[in-house]
This record gives sequence, C-alpha cells and structure tokens, in this order.
Amino acid sequence: MESVIRFIDKKHDNYLNELRDFLKIQSISSDSTKNGETRRCAEWVASNLKSSGVENIQILETGGHPVVYGDYLHAADKPTVLIYGHYDVQPVDPIEAWGTKPFEPVIKGGNIYARGAADDKGKLFAFIKGVEAWLAVRKALPINVKFFIEGEEECGSTHTDSFLEEHKKLLAADAVALSDTAWFAEGFPCIQTALRGLCYMEITVKGPDHDLHSGSFGGIVANPLNVLGHIIAGLQDEDGKILIPGFYDDVLKPTDEELEGFKKLPYNDAEMKRCAGVSSIWGESEFTPLERIWIRPTLDVNGLIGGYTGEGSKTVITTRGTAKISMRLVADQNPVKIAKQFEQYVKKMAPKGIELEAKKLTSAYPVHFPASSKFVQGASRAMEQAFGKKPTFIREAFSIPITYSFLKILNAPSVLIALGHPDDNLHGPNEKFSLEHFFGGIKMAAYFLNEF
Amino acid sequence: MESVIRFIDKKHDNYLNELRDFLKIQSISSDSTKNGETRRCAEWVASNLKSSGVENIQILETGGHPVVYGDYLHAADKPTVLIYGHYDVQPVDPIEAWGTKPFEPVIKGGNIYARGAADDKGKLFAFIKGVEAWLAVRKALPINVKFFIEGEEECGSTHTDSFLEEHKKLLAADAVALSDTAWFAEGFPCIQTALRGLCYMEITVKGPDHDLHSGSFGGIVANPLNVLGHIIAGLQDEDGKILIPGFYDDVLKPTDEELEGFKKLPYNDAEMKRCAGVSSIWGESEFTPLERIWIRPTLDVNGLIGGYTGEGSKTVITTRGTAKISMRLVADQNPVKIAKQFEQYVKKMAPKGIELEAKKLTSAYPVHFPASSKFVQGASRAMEQAFGKKPTFIREAFSIPITYSFLKILNAPSVLIALGHPDDNLHGPNEKFSLEHFFGGIKMAAYFLNEF
Repeated sequence: MESVIRFIDKKHDNYLNELRDFLKIQSISSDSTKNGETRRCAEWVASNLKSSGVENIQILETGGHPVVYGDYLHAADKPTVLIYGHYDVQPVDPIEAWGTKPFEPVIKGGNIYARGAADDKGKLFAFIKGVEAWLAVRKALPINVKFFIEGEEECGSTHTDSFLEEHKKLLAADAVALSDTAWFAEGFPCIQTALRGLCYMEITVKGPDHDLHSGSFGGIVANPLNVLGHIIAGLQDEDGKILIPGFYDDVLKPTDEELEGFKKLPYNDAEMKRCAGVSSIWGESEFTPLERIWIRPTLDVNGLIGGYTGEGSKTVITTRGTAKISMRLVADQNPVKIAKQFEQYVKKMAPKGIELEAKKLTSAYPVHFPASSKFVQGASRAMEQAFGKKPTFIREAFSIPITYSFLKILNAPSVLIALGHPDDNLHGPNEKFSLEHFFGGIKMAAYFLNEF
Repeated sequence: MESVIRFIDKKHDNYLNELRDFLKIQSISSDSTKNGETRRCAEWVASNLKSSGVENIQILETGGHPVVYGDYLHAADKPTVLIYGHYDVQPVDPIEAWGTKPFEPVIKGGNIYARGAADDKGKLFAFIKGVEAWLAVRKALPINVKFFIEGEEECGSTHTDSFLEEHKKLLAADAVALSDTAWFAEGFPCIQTALRGLCYMEITVKGPDHDLHSGSFGGIVANPLNVLGHIIAGLQDEDGKILIPGFYDDVLKPTDEELEGFKKLPYNDAEMKRCAGVSSIWGESEFTPLERIWIRPTLDVNGLIGGYTGEGSKTVITTRGTAKISMRLVADQNPVKIAKQFEQYVKKMAPKGIELEAKKLTSAYPVHFPASSKFVQGASRAMEQAFGKKPTFIREAFSIPITYSFLKILNAPSVLIALGHPDDNLHGPNEKFSLEHFFGGIKMAAYFLNEF
C-alpha cells in the first residue's frame, strides 16, 4: 500500500489540475441549454477513466443524460464493488451570491470553490483517482470494480431506475460505494449506515359545493379548513409523536453501540438552532435531537392552502382545503404500508358532510446498511487509515433514493462514505470542497480497495 | 286607518310605476363610473320624498355618496322613528346569468325583477309610500318620522359612522325602523330581534427564519404549519364548541318564548343541505340548527396558507403559515374582549421556537332588540294587520353593523322588519322582490306609524 500512497502524494498537482478541468465543465443537467456541456462532461469522465486504466468504458444512453460506465474485473474470487457517482451539477442561481465564478475553480483557505466541487464531482473523482493510483503502481486491483456515473442526479434521476433494470447484468455487484454525504463535523469522519425514507401525501378536504357566507352558515356546516386543522392536529401530538395507528410497528431499534456513537459526537443545540434559524429546538422529548432526525420517523406539513388568502378579510366558508404532508420514514418502515395507514386514519377523522381525498405524491424506502457488514467495516478501516481517526457510524436524516434502487434491483447494499463537510454549500452559492478531504479521499479509496 | 289603506290600494299603479323609475337608476355605489347615476338616484329619492309630503329634505355630503335626509316632525309628545334604508345597489356581475336586464324592471309571476328590487330599494320605498299615504289622506303623521337614506351600504358604508357622529342631533330618534331582512319562508313573516356580531382575526405562525429541508430538519424544528393545525384544532372541539377560555361568558340566554317560536318554523335539514350544498348538517349537538346559527357564537377558518402549494411535492419546512379565523358573536359578547381572549389563548398554544402574531382585521358588535320593546311590539302588530299573520320573532345569523352604530351613536334600538323572501337573490343575478310584499309592506309601514 505504501507505494500506492506515495504515488498519490506525488501526483498531487496532476490530480488537482484534472479536478479543476472537471469542475470547469458546466454540466447543469436541469438546464437544457447546457445539454452540450453535460454531454461533454460525460465524455470527459469517460476519457479520464480510460487514461486512469479503467477498461470497457462505455457512454450509455438513457433517454436523458448518458451514463458513463467502466470496469476493471480481474480479481477472480474477490468481491465486485460498484462505484457510484454523478457528473451533473445543480444550477448556479443566485449567481450574485457567489464570491467566485461557479465554473472557474478557485482555491482559498484549503478549499476549492466551484459548482459541483462537493456535489459530487470532487468526491467521485477521489474514487477514480484511488483506482488510478492502484493501476499505475500495481498494474492491478485487489477487487473487481465497476463505475456507474450518471448525469441526472440533480434533475430527478428520471431514467435511472429503468437504466438499472435494463443493465442489471452489466452493473451486478456485491456492494455499491458512494460518497454523497458529509462528516458530522471537522475532526469527526463518519459513515452513514441508514437513510430515512419518505411518504409524501396530499389530502384534500371537501365541504360545501359552493363558497358560503360564514355569517349565514357558520355553526351548521362542517368547515373544510377547520376540519383540516383537526386532521393535522390528530396526526401528531404536540411533542412530535405520530398518532397514526400502527405507524411505529416496523421501526427498527438502533443498537446500543450506535446510540453510544451518537452521544460522542460534538452536537450542540446552539449550532443546530443557528443552522435552522430557530429560537428553540423541538421534538420528542424522550429522544436526543440526533436520534430524532436519524432513528425516528417524523411528520411535517409542507404546504397548506384553502379559502380566502388575500389581504384583509372575507367571511367565507370555502369548498375545500388542501394539505401536503410528508413523513420521513426509518428502516424498516414501508412507504406503501404507511400511505395506507395514513389514508385510513385521516378518512376516519373526517366528520359527516366532509369528503376526504388522500393521494400519495412521492415516496422513498428507508435503507439500512448495518455497520457489521464487511463492506461497511472495510470502509471504516480505510477511513481510519486515510484520515487517522476511526469514523463514527451515524445515520442521515434525508433520503438518497438510488440506494434503495441498488438494493432492490441489484441486490447490492450501499456503503455511504462521507467525504464532505456540513457547510460545503451543496446546491447553494459558494459550493466548496476541502482539498484535505479530496486527497484524503483518494487515499481512502485506495485503502478501501485493499480491504477485501 | 281604513282610509289610508284604501288610498294605498287606489295608488297601486302609481306606486309600481314610481318603484320602476327608482329601479331604473344604475346606482352601483362601488362602481365609480356610475357616480353620476348614484348621485341622480339620491336626487330622485329627495324629490320623491318631497312629493310624498316629507319636509326639510336635504342631500347631505359625506365625502363619498351623499345621504338623503327628510323629516316630518309634528307629533308633539310622540316618539320619533328614524327610517333607514339605502338607495345604492350591488354590481350586476355576472351579467350573463341574468334572465332580464338588471336596470329594466320586469314583472313576472308576482315579482319585480331588477338590481336593487329587494336590496334595498323596494323595501325602503314601501316605507316612503306608507308615509306618503298618511300625509295624503290625513295631512299628518301619528308619530314623528325622519328618513336617513344612505348611498354607501353596498360599498362598506365607509363614511356612515362619522356621518352619524356629525349629524347626531339631526338624526336623533327613539328607534330606527329598517327592512333589510327576509321572511323565514313564504307564509312565515318575521321580525329579527338580534343579529350576530363578528370578530375576524388573522394569525401568523412563524418558525425558522428560512425554508428548511424537511428531510434534514424534520423532527427537531417546530413546523409552523403543524402548529397552525394544532392551534385551529385547539380553538374548537369536533362538535363545534369553542374552547377559548371565557368565550361564552357573556352569551345571553334566549327566552323560552323565543325558542318556542323557532320550533314552530318550517325548518328542515334537507332544504338547508340543498341550500348549503353539503351532504350533512353539522354542529353543536345540544342545539337545533336554527339555534346554532341564531343564538350561538361560531368559529370558522376563512382562509389558510403556508409553505409549498404548487403542483406535486416539495419537502420543505416553511418559515410561516397564516390563518384567517372569524368568530360570529351573539349578544352580549364584545368583539374587543373576544379578540383579547383569542389572542391570549392562541399565543399560549404556540410551542417554544414558534412566534405567533394575532391581529384583529374587522369586527362588529352583536345586537339584540328584545321582542318586549314597544317598537318591536308595534312592528309585530303592523305586520299582522298588513299580512294577516302574526310574525315570529327570529334572529339573524349575519351582521348589519349599522344597527350597532345606531345603538352606540344615536342610542336608538333598531326594529328589523322583514319584507323580503329568502330566495330574492340579493347581490346575485335575477334579484327580485315580491309585489305582494311590496304592497303589503306599504300597508305595514302605514299601520306601524299608527301603533304608538
């Protein structure tokens, strides 16, 4: 390994220059005026993989932006790891809030500033360069590696699931390695072992068939907006506990080790309050804040509308009100089952005279990749060797839906190797990536390959 | 009286022709392009009062549309009744829904169709002609009468209160007679002895200072829209009882006679459901539907907005949500006191991390004019003589704010003499007024003058 690590150190400037070239390409996948740039980016990745020694490079069409594939499959009887990443980036608005030009990478204070620096070009590139170093120094890889690099992650991964289905055999792997997540804090490397899922519902409460004068009819007509309030209140108690019958049935208990790990993290309310822009932290009192966002399902009203919303007053009992309500799910909750439980429960809460419609808008399965698995353990050792500190096994509050697709379609668990910082400004202006994490990430990738 | 009644019968065609002329004037007060017509209407009323024998006619400026005043004050030691009405009308939209032209009165099936026929020209004109008949036949009135006829009722009576304050002395009276209400049903004449008041609040629930990702922050941040649901639910139980502490303290108990009267009315759920366009009647189970709208205060959410309300889903915890919530009040509730109770209560319901603003948008005092008063009793006898049936003392679910102004500024109770039908299409297309009620109304007015 030492020779590989020395090689990485030697190639410092080359890797940085290549990363700069990668970041200069304006691969904004949601902006069709940039389609030329997005395709050029796929071609750049393919060419970089080729010069890195990866074989069987292909640019595969998806109906949208293409996928770049490559592999190196010469380690018989060794596992195959699929390295996943995306070469597309978010739009740059609000452009006036940037201190530098988003597609002209600038190094300042140990960070490289550019759109896509952290999400996901810099992190993905660390894996590519880790593979390259092995192939350059050792002319071989200790395991089998496949690259699956998509160009639609920032515009909904519209074609990804069907692509996975179609290319099941090509992409077959024992595990997926991806880095789209961040350390808990500086000095606290981590590996995410679970992601929350989602069940996003919309309910429409219908009352009178025409707007009524609330003076004339107030008191004898069930008002859809009052009912909507009662339904929202009935979904969750004031402490945050969700009241849908059966809702918690499938919630997996975290291990004691996991909970102990959470407690050692430098969480503090003041920082969380600053970050959320609130004067107080809220939620289920018998759980710590980190437990609430990582191991507990939650319910939020995302939007509400009904009746008169203009200036001043109008004394109307309106015909309908709508609420968008989403639930973050944790392993092993099933969004299909939760949607049914939700629908049955809210329908029961509607009084006579009110018709209630509930529909599921979107959903994502929660995923859980136990820390005990050999791939997660291997990643943990690789992180420790590259960064000098054992990573904490944490969870993530949000969803990365493709991890469930890998599980369902390829039967491959994911290893979520954090390389970013919490303040990397993903999707925002002044996106950045730590160069220490970039080069540490290349070494981590090199160590990781050697762990099986 | 017989000679006066005979005179009214003899003048049938004249009165109808005059009413037609009155209805032809396009006195839409909210439409400034019709200001010429609105002023012409004031002049027409002044001139009609003059030819009816009323004295001291004045067209008084208000800053908006003028008030027409007139009086006949020759009954020493007799009470003075202020006859109130308005010569302005609602706009005619949607014009395409009219079967006739709104300002070309047409008689069909015993009704006269025109904008303003019932609201309020026809009803007001019945009073004027009742006075005219007395003056024509008897050259005197048995009581003192003042006319106060405004032109801004349909555009908010903006200048009315200050006008009343300014002309307190001119308008001083023992009671106000007005007809802006309807019979309960055909064959059921009535007098309204109370009107509900209003306390219209807007609450804004503020949480995070910027929109948050509900995946990342769901479970540790109090969501303003969830809180809004809890607050709405906390205001009223599912049966309709309002939970604000002290809310019912000042609610006046109706008399047993009043409740008995309500029970004799031909109310039926099916008709109310059809009218409201609902599949079921709702509300406080220990009260009948009529009691709920007449003697009980109520609470309705009139509008709700917050967060993402577009198509599809957005996983956001938003910064704020707003609800417009109005309460219909009954005698002797005080909207100022109720607004305070409301504000204190909702503020207590907001959890830590949530800031709540409550403001009163509009309000109206409830009014109550006991059936036992001599003016209400006089009106009741006049109704019985004119229409051959004793009227029921009912209440009205909505507000007529000027009745409170008469009480507060002039210290004069109102007598609400119903002349319309519930289906007269006030404010809507095809407004109509029953000619039987018009001519009966003239006789009622003549009898009413003789009752004191």
